[in-house]
Amino acid sequence: MFKLYYVPGTCALASHIALQEAGAAYTTERLDFKTNQQNSPEYLAINPKGRVPSLVTERGILTETPAMLAFIAQSFPQAKLAPTDDAFEFAQVQAFNSYLCSTVHVAHAHKGRGYRWASEEASFADMKGMVPKTMAACFSLIERAMLKGPWVMGEQYTICDPYLFTLAGWLQGDSVDLAGCRGWPIT
Amino acid sequence: MFKLYYVPGTCALASHIALQEAGAAYTTERLDFKTNQQNSPEYLAINPKGRVPSLVTERGILTETPAMLAFIAQSFPQAKLAPTDDAFEFAQVQAFNSYLCSTVHVAHAHKGRGYRWASEEASFADMKGMVPKTMAACFSLIERAMLKGPWVMGEQYTICDPYLFTLAGWLQGDSVDLAGCRGWPIT
Repeated sequence: MFKLYYVPGTCALASHIALQEAGAAYTTERLDFKTNQQNSPEYLAINPKGRVPSLVTERGILTETPAMLAFIAQSFPQAKLAPTDDAFEFAQVQAFNSYLCSTVHVAHAHKGRGYRWASEEASFADMKGMVPKTMAACFSLIERAMLKGPWVMGEQYTICDPYLFTLAGWLQGDSVDLAGCRGWPIT
Repeated sequence: MFKLYYVPGTCALASHIALQEAGAAYTTERLDFKTNQQNSPEYLAINPKGRVPSLVTERGILTETPAMLAFIAQSFPQAKLAPTDDAFEFAQVQAFNSYLCSTVHVAHAHKGRGYRWASEEASFADMKGMVPKTMAACFSLIERAMLKGPWVMGEQYTICDPYLFTLAGWLQGDSVDLAGCRGWPIT
């Protein structure tokens, strides 16, 4: 039995979908950013980073979406959520998810979390103003150079898809002009 | 035979070390940021992101350090660079490397690559000024909550170690006060 700590609208959705697709037995616990619950002593004991998601397993606690997604795929091979028996294909899945985590999610975070990297209000506004452009550039690159279609990795649905779906859900709120996008398999 | 595209001083060093530790057959090709070689048409055909590292394999091209490190570990199991036969332990390795990639590397990048997320000189200066603090916070958290010791994952050297070594090599240049650090296994 797993337990997923999440906040609605965050990247935790990707792992939530993957748990469901895997047929895993799990419960969820919703945290509230408004009361800063992610930085409560109780939650910091689970995830010292004060972020979501966290996945409590019988072996211990996991964090970081790409790692959690790969773990879910490897733990439920019958769900075929990743090519776990082919190191190269698995690495392609990981490379895609690593890009989402380190570049796309980070670009988005500059809209509302500028305080992580700067201290002045003017900098926050500057960062926020760049987000439609950076997110558009990321998704343009994904469409042009990464997406095999119809799913991210081609004919087989993988853990890349719920993760991309989750981040694509941020585009409208990030004021990204979607006119140039071909559209996504999941709509 | 692999081919690693790299620039000295970048995170490509982690994969370079891992290739060496794995006993892999590989060649390297050095790119030059000063001439913007990473954005040349020739290199963009290899890695459309215009970043290093890239790993050319017989099956295709891989990017993103966590994915490349996991691929090297899985391709050379005799080198024991990751617990590839235990999904939970492997996920712990991946979670650590994902943190380095999405949080620590990103914190560092705000020193010299602020243009990725903002447009004003004042914002760049603001971001740059935060780097000693954010990098210190990252490494303090690593020491306090992640490092098992003597290696990152405990008794066994893994792909986490060359990656942490690489990013730790940036601390001095990032003007991080190291007085509060216990010190590292690799010095």
